[in-house]
This record gives sequence, structure tokens and C-alpha cells, in this order.
Amino acid sequence: MPAKSHLVTPGPTPVPPEVVAAMSQPMLHHRGPDFQAIAERVRTRLREVFHAAGDILLFASSGTGAMEAAVTNLCSPGDRVLVASAGHFGERWVAIARSYGLDVVHLRYAWGETPVPGEIAARLSESGGARAVYITHSETSTGVVADLRAVAERLSGSGALLVVDAVSSLGAVPLAADAWGLDVVVSGSQKALMTPPGLALSSVSASARSASRTAALPRFSLDWGRVESFGSTPAVSLVMGLDAALELLLVEGLEAAFDRHRRLGRACRAGAKAMGIDLFSPDEDRSAVVTAIRMPHGIDGRVIVRAMRERSGVTVGGGQGELAGQIVRIGHIGYIGVADVTAALAALEVALDEAGAAIERGVAVAAALEAYGERVPA
Amino acid sequence: MPAKSHLVTPGPTPVPPEVVAAMSQPMLHHRGPDFQAIAERVRTRLREVFHAAGDILLFASSGTGAMEAAVTNLCSPGDRVLVASAGHFGERWVAIARSYGLDVVHLRYAWGETPVPGEIAARLSESGGARAVYITHSETSTGVVADLRAVAERLSGSGALLVVDAVSSLGAVPLAADAWGLDVVVSGSQKALMTPPGLALSSVSASARSASRTAALPRFSLDWGRVESFGSTPAVSLVMGLDAALELLLVEGLEAAFDRHRRLGRACRAGAKAMGIDLFSPDEDRSAVVTAIRMPHGIDGRVIVRAMRERSGVTVGGGQGELAGQIVRIGHIGYIGVADVTAALAALEVALDEAGAAIERGVAVAAALEAYGERVPA
Repeated sequence: MPAKSHLVTPGPTPVPPEVVAAMSQPMLHHRGPDFQAIAERVRTRLREVFHAAGDILLFASSGTGAMEAAVTNLCSPGDRVLVASAGHFGERWVAIARSYGLDVVHLRYAWGETPVPGEIAARLSESGGARAVYITHSETSTGVVADLRAVAERLSGSGALLVVDAVSSLGAVPLAADAWGLDVVVSGSQKALMTPPGLALSSVSASARSASRTAALPRFSLDWGRVESFGSTPAVSLVMGLDAALELLLVEGLEAAFDRHRRLGRACRAGAKAMGIDLFSPDEDRSAVVTAIRMPHGIDGRVIVRAMRERSGVTVGGGQGELAGQIVRIGHIGYIGVADVTAALAALEVALDEAGAAIERGVAVAAALEAYGERVPA
Repeated sequence: MPAKSHLVTPGPTPVPPEVVAAMSQPMLHHRGPDFQAIAERVRTRLREVFHAAGDILLFASSGTGAMEAAVTNLCSPGDRVLVASAGHFGERWVAIARSYGLDVVHLRYAWGETPVPGEIAARLSESGGARAVYITHSETSTGVVADLRAVAERLSGSGALLVVDAVSSLGAVPLAADAWGLDVVVSGSQKALMTPPGLALSSVSASARSASRTAALPRFSLDWGRVESFGSTPAVSLVMGLDAALELLLVEGLEAAFDRHRRLGRACRAGAKAMGIDLFSPDEDRSAVVTAIRMPHGIDGRVIVRAMRERSGVTVGGGQGELAGQIVRIGHIGYIGVADVTAALAALEVALDEAGAAIERGVAVAAALEAYGERVPA
């Protein structure tokens, strides 16, 4: 009997049985009417989730592929773009844009900081404007969720297209593409959308679509027109799975899902704090995607991640890049309930204790349940 | 009760229950040891299928994405490449290479023709050589399978890297990357490899890998180094499915699989000929991937494809591009038995008869079974 395992990372996330069942249906031909109807329903459902009335694109790619597409379909050689980054995924925008030889203005925040809307607007203005501004909604490497609405407000009227990486945030925290003026929002199947990885998504505004018609960077398989028409075979089974996942999400209701994620974040933070360890991600309600926890002095996060998996069957994320070994990240997006968060906290407690950390034992789970809003014995 | 449907296209192809079961396992984190072990086993199994000892790359993309990667990872701006094409997918190499501004020497055969090895070698020599030669093993749009071994022999020593689209051929017809000197072989999950679409594969020789280190075309998510290290989240569930599919294929045995595909091709051609309709694809054993059948005068293939689906629940492919309406294509790769081929032939017979075509009725299935090697009542 293999040990039962619990996946509590910020992606890929657990897949609900309804999604597994949808992906287990007989394969469909991507040009036939059955699949076309499913793809159209997925687009309609995604318009509701993105709060976007325009084009919805389904990429057979990782989220990174759709990020790359949001560069190559909007820009021409030598264009200036502004990237505001505060972690691993924000810096990915810089790496993509530089790969294509763009003139990148990089407003770099330290990993763990929260971008300041006014500073982004000021930097854009000082730079003389840009073709596009690339930002990250939920910085999965640090747990910081930017105040995207405020950023968009400050950039309104700047003439730059606003492009958002919402890979780990879409479906977990509020986002309203059209109302906030987000031209392109990129997301992925494998986070709050509860579907295996390999399917990426974008909402594209009319302005962005129009810009793509003259954007001259080279592209082929990720060309938006090609993606929209399924010029290459789409990820059929993943689209079928996403259809079922979106039904689950919309039946729960977006507001109810956001509330659940907010309370899961509160629970995770309360548990860590009760143990007496420090949060790396902000202790605020917007931080509802992933909780990054700082390792006590002398404790290597890589050892803790491994111990949690081997001892308790719980898989969490470690620190990426410059944060390697310094933090562990508990994801609480998608098909996750408070019992998953308490399982992760309990496993963390055991691992830290065995590693010799001075922590408070036996209180994290009760504190988490209380913060979530469950009744807890006094 | 919805009508039972039969998928007999040249991709996506039906998915065996063992593959569905593998994809229904709980999601794994792509950086954890369980997934790493699966990915490594998939690479090992693919080396056996490609007959390649070098690098094996797993892309979260369509086959087209891996084709694009075989251009951007090998070439620099302005490089000369030779493409030998004889249909829709061969011409895709041209479109990709031109998207990146390469100097494309295009040896274009008419759709349905079979490329002549000596002519490819001569054209390469006349052109003064090239960085790479791009060819198609199985031209899925026409049913022609090139004599890849002979092509490779003629190009040996030319100094050009040899890149092969084997999307629909790998696992169905013989291919030996190292022995034949194929530098890059691109394939996809959704054809003879019996896995849903969204996962593409490449074998990469040491020479190709070395060339990629100086290739200066821009690329990011499809960069080979990035793909190899799973720099972005791989298509975890599809990799798990491919693992199970490769086990099925290798337990059957590659030679047995090739023999089955050869006999399925014979069966399909024999059935069509018995009906008295003309083949578009060559009537030869190499044509074991897809059988393209010419529509009788005055019959629109699009009407026949729709009638087969609506009347009999059988989905086949129509003609692509300039062949739209002129042919139907019955795929017989992957998880396909002779009963699928006879179901397709029977549905074709009904549809053609109802469309008023002058065909022989009641003989196709028996002829197909006989050609397959099944005993048939005299």
C-alpha cells in the first residue's frame, strides 16, 4: 500500500473527480461539432471568470507559453516595454521580453515586496511611455498578490497596453478584466482552475487584438490567430476537463470561491503564527493564493519540504531562485479545503520539530480552523 | 442514449483504457520524485521507440510547437534551410521557417506525390548547402509515407542537419533515428502513441544539441534547454498517460505494431478498392498511417464526412487545404483494430450510396478482413 499523498502546492493542484471523469470521456476530434461545442462553452464560461467580453484563447502550452504569446503578439522589434516585478514570475516577463530583443524598462522590487501602483505609473511616465506594461497579479514565488485594480487605475490613459500574469490568481481572488482595463490576462489550467497542466488561457481586449495585427515579432504556434482557430491540435482532454472544472467553479459561485480562498489563506497564516514561525508573505486578506513561511534560523527549507513529503506524504513548494531553502510555500487554491491546509500545517509542525526548530506544538491546527471560521473546542 | 461514436481519424486517436487510468491518478507535483521517475521512464521508453540514444524532450505543446522548436533552436537569422514538402504538413515547415525570416529553399511536390530522395539531395547541393533540411515522414494530409531511410542516406555527409516530422508515423511505421542519421525527430502524443493531444516529443542528436548552443533565433518557452529542465510546468497528466501508452506499445513490440499497422493499411485500401473507388494515397505497404480515398466525380467529401458522422457515428478526416472536399481520410494508427477500419468502410459505403455514388455494395468489409489476414467466409 503506497502512502497516501496530499498535494498542497501552488500548482499543479489536485484535480476534482468531476474533472477526471470529463477527461476520461472518449477522445473527440478537434474539428468535429462535439468538441467545438465544448470549446465554445469553455470560452463562454471563461468570459464570466475573466469578466471579459472579448476574445478568449486556449493554448496547448504552459502558462509561460501564453505569457510569451502576450509579448510576441503585441510587440515589434525594439519596442519599449515596462515590467514591474517582485519575484520569480515577474522576472520571467523580463526574460521573455529580452529574449525577443525588446527595450525593457525593469522596475524591480525585491522578492517579497508588493509593487506600488504610483511607482509603476511614475516609472512609465519617466520612460516616455511603452508599448505595454507587464505585471504579475499573484507572485507565486512569494505569496504576494498585487493590488491589481489600483495598478490598472494608475495606468489608465497611459497609452500602454496592460498585460497581467494571473496564472495562479484567476478563480482564487477577484479580477475584472474589462472593468479594470486589463488588455491581456494570462492564466493556466493547473492552479485555481483545478485542471491538469498543459492548457493556458488568455483574455484579449479589442485594443490588444488590434495591436496584434501590426506586431512584428516572429511567432508561429503561439500566434493568437492560429491559436484561436485551433490551427494546431488543441489539448482536447484538458479542454474537456476545464469545462467540468469551470462548471464546478461557477456553481460554487465566484464570490463564494473568493471567500473560501480568503478564509483558507487566513487559516494557513493563523496556523503558522500559532506555531511561532514568521510569515514571508503578507499577513493580509489579499494573500489568498499561497502562504510563504520563513524558515527559523538554521533550518533549511529544502530539508523541511523533503521531510514533509517523506514523513507525512504532504507535498508543498519550496523557495524558488534566491529564496531556495529560506521559505516553504503552502498552496491553497482550487480543489482545496481547510482539511488540506491543516494536513499541511500538521506535517510542517512535525518536520520542524524533528529538525530541532523551537516551535509551539499542538496549536497550529486549532488556530487554523478557528481562523477559517470553523467552530473550535475552547 | 447518445449514439456511440467511433474515432477513425489520423489524430487525435482513441485512448486505451490503460492510458485513461494512468491519467486519472492523483496529480503529482512536477518537481517531486514521483513525477521525475515517470518522466525519466518515458524518456527511456521513447529512446527505444525513436531508436535514439541522445536527448529526448517532452514539450507541453502541439506537434507544431515542437516543429517550431526544431527551427528556432537550430537556426540563426538569415540561415538557409531546405524544405522538401508534398502536402499540408510539409508546407508547415516552410511557413514556420519564413515566420522567422529564414532563407527557405522549397522543393515543393504536389500534394499526394512522394518525395524523391535523389532530387532532395540534388536540390540541396545546387543550393550550396543548408543549415538544416526539414522533411515529413508521414504526410498526414495525403497518406504518403516518404522513404525516409533512403532520403537520409542520400543526405548523409551533406553537412545539413536532418529534421523529420514524424508526428503521425512514430510507433506506426519503422524509424531509426540514430542508424539513419536523423538529427531531430519530432512527434506528438495524439497519433500512434495513443495519448490525448497536448504533448509533443523530440529526439535530438548530439550534433543538433551542439548547433542549438549557437542558434540565435529568438525563443523562450520552446527553448530546448528550458523544455529539458521543465523550466515551465510540463503536461503532467499527459506524460503519465504516455508512460502507460508506451508500455502498451513496447509490450506489443515495435515490430508487431508495425505489422499491425501495415495490415490495417492493406485492409483499408482493399475495402476501398472493392467498393470500386479510387485511392488517393499510394497502394503500397509503407502507406500504413492514413488511407486517403478520392471521392467519386460529383461527390463532395465534406458531405460524406458529415454523413458518416451523423448516420453512423464514425468520425474520419476530410481533405485539408487544396484537397478540401476531394478526399476522405481514414486513420488507422494507435489504438485501432481491424474492426475500427471495417466500421469506417461500412459507414463510408452507406454515405456514398446515399449520396448517389456508383459503388459496389456489400463487399468492402469482407475484402478488408481478408487483406488484414482474418479468415473470411468464401
